[in-house]
Amino acid sequence: MTLADWLTLIEIAATVAFAVSGLIVAARERLDVVGAAVVAIAASFGGGTVRDVLLGRRPFFWVEHQEYLWAVLILAAISWPLFVRGRIAPSERVLVVPDALGMGLFSASGVGLALDAGMPPLVAVLMGVVTAVFGGVVRDVLCNRLPAALHDHQPYALCAFAGGWFTIGCVTLGVTSTTALLVGAALASALRLLAWWRGWRLPGWPAT
Amino acid sequence: MTLADWLTLIEIAATVAFAVSGLIVAARERLDVVGAAVVAIAASFGGGTVRDVLLGRRPFFWVEHQEYLWAVLILAAISWPLFVRGRIAPSERVLVVPDALGMGLFSASGVGLALDAGMPPLVAVLMGVVTAVFGGVVRDVLCNRLPAALHDHQPYALCAFAGGWFTIGCVTLGVTSTTALLVGAALASALRLLAWWRGWRLPGWPAT
Amino acid sequence: MTLADWLTLIEIAATVAFAVSGLIVAARERLDVVGAAVVAIAASFGGGTVRDVLLGRRPFFWVEHQEYLWAVLILAAISWPLFVRGRIAPSERVLVVPDALGMGLFSASGVGLALDAGMPPLVAVLMGVVTAVFGGVVRDVLCNRLPAALHDHQPYALCAFAGGWFTIGCVTLGVTSTTALLVGAALASALRLLAWWRGWRLPGWPAT
Repeated sequence: MTLADWLTLIEIAATVAFAVSGLIVAARERLDVVGAAVVAIAASFGGGTVRDVLLGRRPFFWVEHQEYLWAVLILAAISWPLFVRGRIAPSERVLVVPDALGMGLFSASGVGLALDAGMPPLVAVLMGVVTAVFGGVVRDVLCNRLPAALHDHQPYALCAFAGGWFTIGCVTLGVTSTTALLVGAALASALRLLAWWRGWRLPGWPAT
Repeated sequence: MTLADWLTLIEIAATVAFAVSGLIVAARERLDVVGAAVVAIAASFGGGTVRDVLLGRRPFFWVEHQEYLWAVLILAAISWPLFVRGRIAPSERVLVVPDALGMGLFSASGVGLALDAGMPPLVAVLMGVVTAVFGGVVRDVLCNRLPAALHDHQPYALCAFAGGWFTIGCVTLGVTSTTALLVGAALASALRLLAWWRGWRLPGWPAT
Repeated sequence: MTLADWLTLIEIAATVAFAVSGLIVAARERLDVVGAAVVAIAASFGGGTVRDVLLGRRPFFWVEHQEYLWAVLILAAISWPLFVRGRIAPSERVLVVPDALGMGLFSASGVGLALDAGMPPLVAVLMGVVTAVFGGVVRDVLCNRLPAALHDHQPYALCAFAGGWFTIGCVTLGVTSTTALLVGAALASALRLLAWWRGWRLPGWPAT
């Protein structure tokens, strides 16, 4: 397989993982099948869509790639009866690896698109974070929950932040943009997996 | 009256019905008059605004038709004291017919605008759903409630979805775009009224 | 100091005040440091960003003025450990004056940009209100709270509304746009401070 094939494979796995995270939250809130489909779409495509609205970029990913939209809708429609009857109850553990790979890939793509749009470095890095994280934020806001990304004390957005700055650093040092984005993506994913494996936590509140 | 007059009449009735749905939710959350006006505006114009932001379309409906914005603001300002004093407590029953007609009209207008913008079929249908449904979603998110559209197990968004596909099918078969949109709108509204009258429900969660 | 210097000073003080309001809400919800930074950014820049998305205006304030984004991020990163350890617990009282000045300035800037974009008067006034108020709304929605602006019964958005109409009136009477915006800003700020000092409240719900 070529590099492009691998990246497409990661993109597919991550989109499915994000959609499943939406279905899990939707099931917790006992949404109906419409809610499940809406939240799965929001979780999968919300981050990139917020980024593109902020960058004024069109067309959206899911307009150019209708097949992803179909895939998430069909996934929601097929799996929802099984969720409702309790036949499947996917654990968030099975999502960790595809989610971490997708987080790296999506945050690097956000950084790359923002740099292409002439954004300054800090804004480009934050656009990477938005791409990786805001699908989950929109998912949780729609489900009337405090967004996990803001209070679960896991260094998730920080991994995207670190990967983004690494990419910016590489570009500044003259590394080609494609290479810089790939190493930034790999660093973000690796940090996330390491944080998960070692149980790293952000500083927390004292018990009261 | 011409067809255009009828459509304008439905548009007015539906805008008022959506605004009143916003006032009802605002009253449940005991908002103040500012909150009531904001939520009424969000309920009336939120769906079309989200659609236009996604399609990159300008000007917004409420910029071109300031009179609707005035009408909703004045409605909120006049009716709010009566809400607060308990003089009026409109039931959602009186909203069903104007809301259903407006849902059909708004979803068809969303499908039509998306097709005009060159969107592929699935995206056009979803833009119709967004137009019809997201006013209520934004209303509920602002009021810190789980959006009714996502968990009330009523086939509301599904009626817009079905009407949208019917429009797409008619267009594919060579029906003129105006006719296709009108029959799609009528189908969505009729399905919604039928669903309400017969008490159709989406499959629900087992009691626990 | 020139007028421009004073306006920049107010802008800085207000941005910090809005960011601190975000940190206070984030601390109440026991967010982590990522959540604190996201909510502080949303509180500071959310209103102007929503306005610019609605007006289709680019670049955003925080893209042109990266230094403000840096300032809010650094403020969040430095002050958060002190919040978490209970070393600082800023009262909302200290924010009243910078917040009121910023509210006037931001709402006038929203009115001015909307008029420049050719918006009709009511829309321009509402864009001023959005600029002044929606940072707080986005902050509260992200924190899963009923937005204070919608239910705290303080005449905050109404002060921005009044200042906006005063600006429109001055412009209609032939006053130059800069002067009209300055007096509108001053009126909005003065009304807000007066409302706070005198304890003015919007009509409330009967106790039940």
